[in-house]
Amino acid sequence: MSDQGLLYHVDGDLVPASEATVNVRDRGFLYGDAAFETMRAYGGKVFEWNAHMDRLRETCEVLDFDHGLSDAELRERVDDTLAANELAEAYVRLSITRGVQPGKLTPDTEVDPTVVVIVSQLPRGGRGDESVWDGPATLQTVKTKRVPDESIPSQAKTHNYLNGILARLELRVSDADEAVMVDVDGHVTEGATSNLFFVRDNALRTPSLDGPVLPGITRRVVLELAAEEGIPVEEGQYTPEEIRNADEVFLTNSTWEIRPVETVDGLSVGDDEDDGSTETAAGPVTTLLSRLFDARVESTHYE
Amino acid sequence: MSDQGLLYHVDGDLVPASEATVNVRDRGFLYGDAAFETMRAYGGKVFEWNAHMDRLRETCEVLDFDHGLSDAELRERVDDTLAANELAEAYVRLSITRGVQPGKLTPDTEVDPTVVVIVSQLPRGGRGDESVWDGPATLQTVKTKRVPDESIPSQAKTHNYLNGILARLELRVSDADEAVMVDVDGHVTEGATSNLFFVRDNALRTPSLDGPVLPGITRRVVLELAAEEGIPVEEGQYTPEEIRNADEVFLTNSTWEIRPVETVDGLSVGDDEDDGSTETAAGPVTTLLSRLFDARVESTHYE
Repeated sequence: MSDQGLLYHVDGDLVPASEATVNVRDRGFLYGDAAFETMRAYGGKVFEWNAHMDRLRETCEVLDFDHGLSDAELRERVDDTLAANELAEAYVRLSITRGVQPGKLTPDTEVDPTVVVIVSQLPRGGRGDESVWDGPATLQTVKTKRVPDESIPSQAKTHNYLNGILARLELRVSDADEAVMVDVDGHVTEGATSNLFFVRDNALRTPSLDGPVLPGITRRVVLELAAEEGIPVEEGQYTPEEIRNADEVFLTNSTWEIRPVETVDGLSVGDDEDDGSTETAAGPVTTLLSRLFDARVESTHYE
Repeated sequence: MSDQGLLYHVDGDLVPASEATVNVRDRGFLYGDAAFETMRAYGGKVFEWNAHMDRLRETCEVLDFDHGLSDAELRERVDDTLAANELAEAYVRLSITRGVQPGKLTPDTEVDPTVVVIVSQLPRGGRGDESVWDGPATLQTVKTKRVPDESIPSQAKTHNYLNGILARLELRVSDADEAVMVDVDGHVTEGATSNLFFVRDNALRTPSLDGPVLPGITRRVVLELAAEEGIPVEEGQYTPEEIRNADEVFLTNSTWEIRPVETVDGLSVGDDEDDGSTETAAGPVTTLLSRLFDARVESTHYE
């Protein structure tokens, strides 16, 4: 992500990326006391805006934080930022922090929030020439356990991202693309920045939101598309072993959309016959869902 | 904490507090990907500097983050900040972030760290006229569980402080001063920003570092002082019930030093006779340790 010549939106103003700053006493910096959303613009318009706003509201409820800004005000800042940068296909990060407050850790109910919009060019997957990712992902189950809901509720998307960073740091050995994180009971939850799906016995399966799993927007869209298509869907509790033995595995998030997975813990996905070949192409369910996803984007943003 | 007229140290320069900023793409802001230390200056000199540097190193090891700055370089920045503000009795917060990096969540090994020193005037406890705290603390056991070590190691002091913030938010009902946080197994760990001690059967007890407990510098000094004085000390696993039934309870951190606790979960500490009186004075062990602590500060910083 390069900020060359980009304008960001900080606290109501468009400013050059290099001058886009927050005070060192901003609670977003001191404590990660901030809500955020990672979004995707297609054709200049944010995908699933309302779903992102719903989740942002949920995060702020967890943080007991009333920022006082309407969805329309936030949308205007995001749209202004995209327009000012003449970006149609873009990554958008919207952060709202609890701002600078007197006192130390305990938050004041009186909030003067800091609102930050960061954008960058992002090629559209599926129909474009480029892709956001280089190829199918390699996964590695890591030792770092997903933070339990009773410590920090997983539906809150905040600037506290060290749990995922520690998971990613473990990948320095295997050079895998994404970590598979299990919870303290050993059940699969998600990747550091993605939700995880797999196919077994012709059904699409993904860890249920009863565990510490972020309710991803792309995750929800994929579940909708599968239901519409009549693909059997199961949200449940799974072990890493079940992921390793899946017929197909893929990841979802707003920037990757649907990213096929090639290997899990060093083993080829769906390589039942063990004929020595390396299957790199996405399986049929993954391919179908990717096409349906592209069609959804096409119909909602380009027609 | 007011920043009126103060100078902070940011990335090598002394700047007015209102202009002390970090870029919005700094990882300390985006993810809380930063190590920090809260320190205390007495007579213009940081208390237990070496212990703070040891812990900072440990945090950076957990984060797999080589900032490349020597203790001496960091000390110079802290001393310069104190001198520039003519502060002798002060709160000092030193933060080192992983800076701005290309890419997203996965940290680069190549780091251009951001170093921030924030200071403010802080009255000296014990011997001064003022106190950092208004009076003995009230404690409330909260529902938010301390993040387990297997998710984020507790010896790492980082900008990911939402777990403690969520605990403090629960105090809005009772208006207690500090939260008692238990781990996912129900054992007492610590407060949101303090370590917890209690006295029972004439022994000083505190949750052991085997659980998710920050190895506080003041905690360590207090354990040293108790050992020197021949007070029996136990580091163990305790339930909230044991804290409620303690003869004395106190909290420690760098700013509060030793702060007596008056009530736990709405019950008076050490009020065995239940004679309706409210005991507000600190118990004998707490008082003794407070005097020993003051004497330690006096001998190391003012003689």
